[in-house]
Amino acid sequence: MKKVEAIIRPEKFQDLRERLASIGFDGLTVTEVAGTGKQKGKVGVYRSTEFEVTLLSKLKVELVVSEERVDDIVGHIIDACKTNQIGDGKIFIHPIEQVIRIRTGESGTKAIY
Amino acid sequence: MKKVEAIIRPEKFQDLRERLASIGFDGLTVTEVAGTGKQKGKVGVYRSTEFEVTLLSKLKVELVVSEERVDDIVGHIIDACKTNQIGDGKIFIHPIEQVIRIRTGESGTKAIY
Amino acid sequence: MKKVEAIIRPEKFQDLRERLASIGFDGLTVTEVAGTGKQKGKVGVYRSTEFEVTLLSKLKVELVVSEERVDDIVGHIIDACKTNQIGDGKIFIHPIEQVIRIRTGESGTKAIY
Ligand SMILES: Nc1ncnc2c1ncn2[C@@H]1O[C@H](COP(=O)(O)OP(=O)(O)OP(=O)(O)O)[C@@H](O)[C@H]1O
Ligand SMILES: Nc1ncnc2c1ncn2[C@@H]1O[C@H](COP(=O)(O)OP(=O)(O)OP(=O)(O)O)[C@@H](O)[C@H]1O
Ligand SMILES: Nc1ncnc2c1ncn2[C@@H]1O[C@H](COP(=O)(O)OP(=O)(O)OP(=O)(O)O)[C@@H](O)[C@H]1O
Ligand SMILES: [Mg+2]
Ligand SMILES: [Mg+2]
Ligand SMILES: [Mg+2]
Repeated sequence: MKKVEAIIRPEKFQDLRERLASIGFDGLTVTEVAGTGKQKGKVGVYRSTEFEVTLLSKLKVELVVSEERVDDIVGHIIDACKTNQIGDGKIFIHPIEQVIRIRTGESGTKAIY
Repeated sequence: MKKVEAIIRPEKFQDLRERLASIGFDGLTVTEVAGTGKQKGKVGVYRSTEFEVTLLSKLKVELVVSEERVDDIVGHIIDACKTNQIGDGKIFIHPIEQVIRIRTGESGTKAIY
Repeated sequence: MKKVEAIIRPEKFQDLRERLASIGFDGLTVTEVAGTGKQKGKVGVYRSTEFEVTLLSKLKVELVVSEERVDDIVGHIIDACKTNQIGDGKIFIHPIEQVIRIRTGESGTKAIY
């Protein structure tokens, strides 16, 4: 089991949501976050320690999936969220050791979906 | 060391909090999130790409614990958060490689609690 | 690749941000969270099940970095966020299996920065 975590443009979430639903995938958790990625050294150069780097609003979307679905999910995230402009976001893949459904006590792969 | 991450109904948090405090456990981090789990394919069937699937408000509760406490903590989360209705939530177990207490610089198990 | 996750006092974020920028590091994600750490058993003792333990506002700062930068980043977080008062926060180190830049499709170390 893996966790696919995508930091995306908020305006791309609805597209991603529909695309995942169309392949029957609807287990996900969303968090409002703020962030910065690569800024190419241009920010704050003239204002030294006084600079305030603006953080951009992003959405963190987390999907716990079985290992064999990771590549497919990553492809759908890229297709839904890519605009070719800087700031399109990042995907991080994490190991997950166990999943438990609270209602039933089920664990492992059958608790994911 | 492991991270026990529970996505729960917000109204169950106070019960969980008290239950954990009663066993002397009080290191935790809470985040407001939104999510969906299994929807049994019923959502959006008639409205294809126009549907908007409502996300439900949940709380993410994260507890970093030593390995031997994981099963106990999971049991307490289930006892506190289970209503037997769909949407009771999920528990994810993650590996953690290191913990450091910023104030003291301590690391490892003695930095957890 | 590792994820360095720091739960810090919100008022220390700007210092940390500038310190990281000064070493050329600007990929990070910030989330508003609430939490408690060790409370030394003093909370709620007289009010049993009625107590409400106050959660404190914290910021979660996540930085995905290559393995060889972890110790350096941890040192900078401690230097920026330590006040020597209880509640200075915690740092958790997590394994990361893969990173992908959505715009370019790049993966691995060259997708981190
Ligand atoms: N190394 C990192 N660690 C943690 N979060 C990151 C990291 N890099 C990026 N992020 C998160 O991802 C968001 C989007 O990053 P962004 O798309 O700008 O990445 P980038 O590497 O600068 O790519 P691009 O060149 O396309 O802008 C950031 O706002 C931040 O929340
Ligand atoms: N695979 C998943 N990946 C990420 N987050 C998930 C996943 N499944 C569930 N969640 C999170 O857990 C929350 C609760 O899920 P939920 O209890 O509905 O799970 P479920 O598998 O549908 O179980 P039930 O049949 O009891 O409803 C969701 O709102 C979402 O935030
Ligand atoms: N074991 C833990 N699991 C998850 N989150 C934790 C844990 N311990 C602390 N935290 C998070 O870190 C924040 C800061 O913790 P805090 O600095 O009070 O840790 P502490 O161990 O009590 O250290 P100190 O003695 O310096 O207060 C908490 O508000 C909580 O969000
Ligand atoms: Mg960028
Ligand atoms: Mg459900
Ligand atoms: Mg404390």
